[in-house]
Amino acid sequence: MRILVVNVNTTASMTEGIGRQAAAAASPGTEIVPLTPLFGAESVEGNYESYLAAVAVMETVRAYSEPFDAVIQAGYGEHGREGLQELLDVPVVDITEAAASTALFLGHKYSVVTTLDRTVPLIEDRLKLAGLSDRCASVRASGMAVLDLERDPAAALRTIAAAAELAVTEDRAEVICLGCGGMAGLAEEVVARTAVPVVDGVAAAVTIAESLVRLGLTTSKVRTFAAPRPKTFTNWPPRVAAARP
Amino acid sequence: MRILVVNVNTTASMTEGIGRQAAAAASPGTEIVPLTPLFGAESVEGNYESYLAAVAVMETVRAYSEPFDAVIQAGYGEHGREGLQELLDVPVVDITEAAASTALFLGHKYSVVTTLDRTVPLIEDRLKLAGLSDRCASVRASGMAVLDLERDPAAALRTIAAAAELAVTEDRAEVICLGCGGMAGLAEEVVARTAVPVVDGVAAAVTIAESLVRLGLTTSKVRTFAAPRPKTFTNWPPRVAAARP
Amino acid sequence: MRILVVNVNTTASMTEGIGRQAAAAASPGTEIVPLTPLFGAESVEGNYESYLAAVAVMETVRAYSEPFDAVIQAGYGEHGREGLQELLDVPVVDITEAAASTALFLGHKYSVVTTLDRTVPLIEDRLKLAGLSDRCASVRASGMAVLDLERDPAAALRTIAAAAELAVTEDRAEVICLGCGGMAGLAEEVVARTAVPVVDGVAAAVTIAESLVRLGLTTSKVRTFAAPRPKTFTNWPPRVAAARP
Amino acid sequence: MRILVVNVNTTASMTEGIGRQAAAAASPGTEIVPLTPLFGAESVEGNYESYLAAVAVMETVRAYSEPFDAVIQAGYGEHGREGLQELLDVPVVDITEAAASTALFLGHKYSVVTTLDRTVPLIEDRLKLAGLSDRCASVRASGMAVLDLERDPAAALRTIAAAAELAVTEDRAEVICLGCGGMAGLAEEVVARTAVPVVDGVAAAVTIAESLVRLGLTTSKVRTFAAPRPKTFTNWPPRVAAARP
Amino acid sequence: MRILVVNVNTTASMTEGIGRQAAAAASPGTEIVPLTPLFGAESVEGNYESYLAAVAVMETVRAYSEPFDAVIQAGYGEHGREGLQELLDVPVVDITEAAASTALFLGHKYSVVTTLDRTVPLIEDRLKLAGLSDRCASVRASGMAVLDLERDPAAALRTIAAAAELAVTEDRAEVICLGCGGMAGLAEEVVARTAVPVVDGVAAAVTIAESLVRLGLTTSKVRTFAAPRPKTFTNWPPRVAAARP
Amino acid sequence: MRILVVNVNTTASMTEGIGRQAAAAASPGTEIVPLTPLFGAESVEGNYESYLAAVAVMETVRAYSEPFDAVIQAGYGEHGREGLQELLDVPVVDITEAAASTALFLGHKYSVVTTLDRTVPLIEDRLKLAGLSDRCASVRASGMAVLDLERDPAAALRTIAAAAELAVTEDRAEVICLGCGGMAGLAEEVVARTAVPVVDGVAAAVTIAESLVRLGLTTSKVRTFAAPRPKTFTNWPPRVAAARP
Repeated sequence: MRILVVNVNTTASMTEGIGRQAAAAASPGTEIVPLTPLFGAESVEGNYESYLAAVAVMETVRAYSEPFDAVIQAGYGEHGREGLQELLDVPVVDITEAAASTALFLGHKYSVVTTLDRTVPLIEDRLKLAGLSDRCASVRASGMAVLDLERDPAAALRTIAAAAELAVTEDRAEVICLGCGGMAGLAEEVVARTAVPVVDGVAAAVTIAESLVRLGLTTSKVRTFAAPRPKTFTNWPPRVAAARP
Repeated sequence: MRILVVNVNTTASMTEGIGRQAAAAASPGTEIVPLTPLFGAESVEGNYESYLAAVAVMETVRAYSEPFDAVIQAGYGEHGREGLQELLDVPVVDITEAAASTALFLGHKYSVVTTLDRTVPLIEDRLKLAGLSDRCASVRASGMAVLDLERDPAAALRTIAAAAELAVTEDRAEVICLGCGGMAGLAEEVVARTAVPVVDGVAAAVTIAESLVRLGLTTSKVRTFAAPRPKTFTNWPPRVAAARP
Repeated sequence: MRILVVNVNTTASMTEGIGRQAAAAASPGTEIVPLTPLFGAESVEGNYESYLAAVAVMETVRAYSEPFDAVIQAGYGEHGREGLQELLDVPVVDITEAAASTALFLGHKYSVVTTLDRTVPLIEDRLKLAGLSDRCASVRASGMAVLDLERDPAAALRTIAAAAELAVTEDRAEVICLGCGGMAGLAEEVVARTAVPVVDGVAAAVTIAESLVRLGLTTSKVRTFAAPRPKTFTNWPPRVAAARP
Repeated sequence: MRILVVNVNTTASMTEGIGRQAAAAASPGTEIVPLTPLFGAESVEGNYESYLAAVAVMETVRAYSEPFDAVIQAGYGEHGREGLQELLDVPVVDITEAAASTALFLGHKYSVVTTLDRTVPLIEDRLKLAGLSDRCASVRASGMAVLDLERDPAAALRTIAAAAELAVTEDRAEVICLGCGGMAGLAEEVVARTAVPVVDGVAAAVTIAESLVRLGLTTSKVRTFAAPRPKTFTNWPPRVAAARP
Repeated sequence: MRILVVNVNTTASMTEGIGRQAAAAASPGTEIVPLTPLFGAESVEGNYESYLAAVAVMETVRAYSEPFDAVIQAGYGEHGREGLQELLDVPVVDITEAAASTALFLGHKYSVVTTLDRTVPLIEDRLKLAGLSDRCASVRASGMAVLDLERDPAAALRTIAAAAELAVTEDRAEVICLGCGGMAGLAEEVVARTAVPVVDGVAAAVTIAESLVRLGLTTSKVRTFAAPRPKTFTNWPPRVAAARP
Repeated sequence: MRILVVNVNTTASMTEGIGRQAAAAASPGTEIVPLTPLFGAESVEGNYESYLAAVAVMETVRAYSEPFDAVIQAGYGEHGREGLQELLDVPVVDITEAAASTALFLGHKYSVVTTLDRTVPLIEDRLKLAGLSDRCASVRASGMAVLDLERDPAAALRTIAAAAELAVTEDRAEVICLGCGGMAGLAEEVVARTAVPVVDGVAAAVTIAESLVRLGLTTSKVRTFAAPRPKTFTNWPPRVAAARP
């Protein structure tokens, strides 16, 4: 089974980290293919960048020429999952939803700890549309920018663990979701500090994608996610995407 | 006052229609500038096309070189408004929200009559996130594709009026919103058949944009819609957009 | 265009202030007619007074003998708008709803800052029924009584600005609505202190009423707001209202 | 124990019917005092009349000169209960809420069967604000006007039973609330036709008022329903109410 | 009228206390029969114990051989009420719901003060399913275990009053529900400290059960609570229950 | 990895069927252990039976003497999952929640098709508490009793497929969940008739349980699902369960 794991930003080192995290969660026999978008921003921390990422992920997957069995969109709180579902016949899993869905099996309420304060409403909106917000205790920002997670891992751990502790004690969360693809690898230490289960969205998404494939289930094509109707496009896709084999 | 009214598809005749509708609603002294996206699909009827439209509208507005006072995104149920709000210091009005917001002043519940069945969930999701769905009685599809609205206006009127009547009698709507930028001009006849107020989103958006400008109000920059942080972009914007003056 | 702007209390100086605020927001050619209720309380700060205001506003408008194009009910959180909609064929705009509706175009969440703690539930209930509470972050009391707003403007500004700041920092509001007709004129200074957009309900209502009139839209008469059925009334209206020309 | 049961309209025969219904439900030792409002409409079937009834009930109770232990407002879907709670130190029970609250103990979901279609939204709004709508399956109109309930009891029973049956079979209600003070007395026959429990709001309210008095419980005065602050009133109360001893 | 009041734990002294509390609230002519479950835990403070209590209460009532008119389940936040409703033709009242339903008549919002933190989600879930959570301001834990309420009444009062005060000042509750059958008797002192009405669920349930009986109302048998279908059971009921006369 | 799959009724042939369904979905190396409750009803179709099943499943798992890695409760809409989570340190997965959680990845809305009408509210309540009902289009009954699924498979398929088709066309479901452990094996034929994905809860639960084990995640013990406190139990567990090794 081959699963594409698509980063939402163009920072290759983050794609690699996400790929490693995904591979660690994959079953034997599952091939993880990490992809960096063909265009877009070096990090995604707002709506403009998120919409651009949505389109970049879609075009990047469309330009991928080998067969694959499932796609994971590895951006927390980002747009685009619904478009991928229209374009593809294989299952699509968003890590925001994968983490929340997994957290529901582990405790009465969960919280998300993310990066900058400005991304909190994006995550809240994604969870609301996904119908997964009823048991969300809070989405808390650590204050770390996405790229700072790599630059200063010690500060990242410290601020993320602090936010997680507040989520448990103040917001009554019983499970923590790490709200950024770039936080992969911090789970163990956050568990050590909070004594609650910590869900990494990339790992959770890999198991869900594998499960859907194994169960022979994929996106319903009956209405919302039917394949796009044939259309004439102007100036699209951009050369960088169209030029792919 | 200059207001950009941006179509979400690349069909120039629809941009013209939207522009005429906007101009008819504008106050003396307001200049309406209709814009066609620099790239994208000839009509937007699903998530892939909608996400692409979101990005195309943003880049089209960014490439516009003259000063302006407000922007209207003239796609019903489309993504992107939040990104425009980050990019701009002037008010941004989405016609889906403008129509719903206006309908709330006119009756106890409203319904939206749109084009294809597959676009219903997009509109429902937009209204849900906008916090405008509590008094939405239903979103009903007429079954007409966007481009068929122009091709067969008689059938469009007939199917839209039929859906509107069902919304009033079955769903208990007291106001109808015309759920497609391309339905501009049908309002009068739908009123004649249903005896309830009919709101055209483009016209509503023009009055709201003018009002915000007159009141000196624009998007809050304190958190969600703060300007994007400086970032390095790869392969973006595409040449067609970047090449604009 | 003539718009009646009806105060909900019998304090003439407040009617004048509201009238000035409305006139400042009106377009050229719009005549603002401020009205003081023919009966009622000197300020409205609770349910008894609010229900009385509802009836007083309705009878005052009914007793008004000149033609008019729209009515604004200028009480924040007060009852009565639905009754006016039944009685009249012209648009009716409540300032609580006008402010909230306008705030939705300006930020992800808004808060209302009002007078006494006891009026908070009234405003919450009005917003809930109006279907405008999903994105309301909080309704906060400044602790100032309505009539004290005029008596001690410095204290009013100080306590209102303090509550607004808490709404932004603690409740994550991005827009502030001034929750009392008597707060007109404080907007500019609250903006200066909070750096978020501040919406005055009276000004917002004027632009919405003008817009509805310009668009040819008025209350749906199909069900909820149909004209009252012919009825025999006992001891009503009271002489003070009936005696008007 | 003396309980005032206040009709919302000025039709004395309806007051008598409501009084009889209340007396039949009262415990030995409870005195039921039926009151007709000092002013208002002969029947209440809309917002204007409902707001007027709210004020009329309040002034009628204020003008009542004997001691009493509780007040029941006997209008289904009418405004005003919150104002009475401010004015009085004894418990106040609204029949809309009493019926719904009682129905919750009897089945998984309940429906309300009321008079005219136009009153449905009023009842829905009252239940929403009361926090009693989650298990409300539907509010259905029988199409009978309030005063026609007395004029044509056979038609009333027929149309009400038909609506109740639809509520049970289509809306999955398991309990029916009779949604008009004037429907008192029809319960037995509606039970016979639907085989589900039927709640009369007046009877339910009597038992709740008695219970609150017996338990020594009354309205909290800590915030929302604190006594009105001392105020100067203009032209109020009207002579008819003020003239009462 | 005979009302069974069934404790959910096997501590006889608590059954006696609940019985006294119920008897104090009962009308003349009502016989209160307190019952201790035939099996189960000495106190119920979690889901395992609560599910066991649900079954134990049902079997205990089934094993009771005398006629009775209503049943009260005297556990706060416990499971089981729906099963009793299936088994019985007489009304069933749960004290969690009785308290909340009563509190709604007394203030704008209510809070529950309960024992251990771990029981908070059980109560929240019960109120949510009962459709009584919209006006619930909070469920707060005092930190006292159930059996400690008897062992250290002074500490119980102190911690419960402290939690109640926070509910009023921080969560804006206007009414307090005592969230444990074992708190019966503390109401008066909590009122003294908070100045808000305090509802004891057992007392409230007695008046509601009496009211339903007097009104001739009982559980709807049309769907959810129809009598169980005839079934073969294995190893059930256990000897202790089956051995009862 | 060993996963216990516990039937909720005492019909051994159903346990076998569930076991086969689970084994078919399991990964190589996963051992499925199907268990029949030590006591209880031959089928579970209501609240009394469901509460009994909750307790029986818990005691059956407690009496199981071998080590295991996860538990699946294989009853659709049944009580008890929260109690198992308290008792165990390994993950617990309920098939109602597993099916819904899986369906969310496959379409915009899902419906559940279950057995008897009387079980619909149980399933609705379970989904509501689980926070998985926002995107649930409907729960529809096929009218088949649980044991009739085995007795008349042709009728079962026909009625279930008919209900599924109505869910897709009338309720706008895009995915169907088979709402009974005994429906395992019908998925393929329902897919053939509806052209939408069909989720079997047992199969879904197996993949989720495996995933949680692989990810090293289990129930949070921080609050709601902490191990039960040490307690004295009376007459419990019953001999049949206690006698197990």
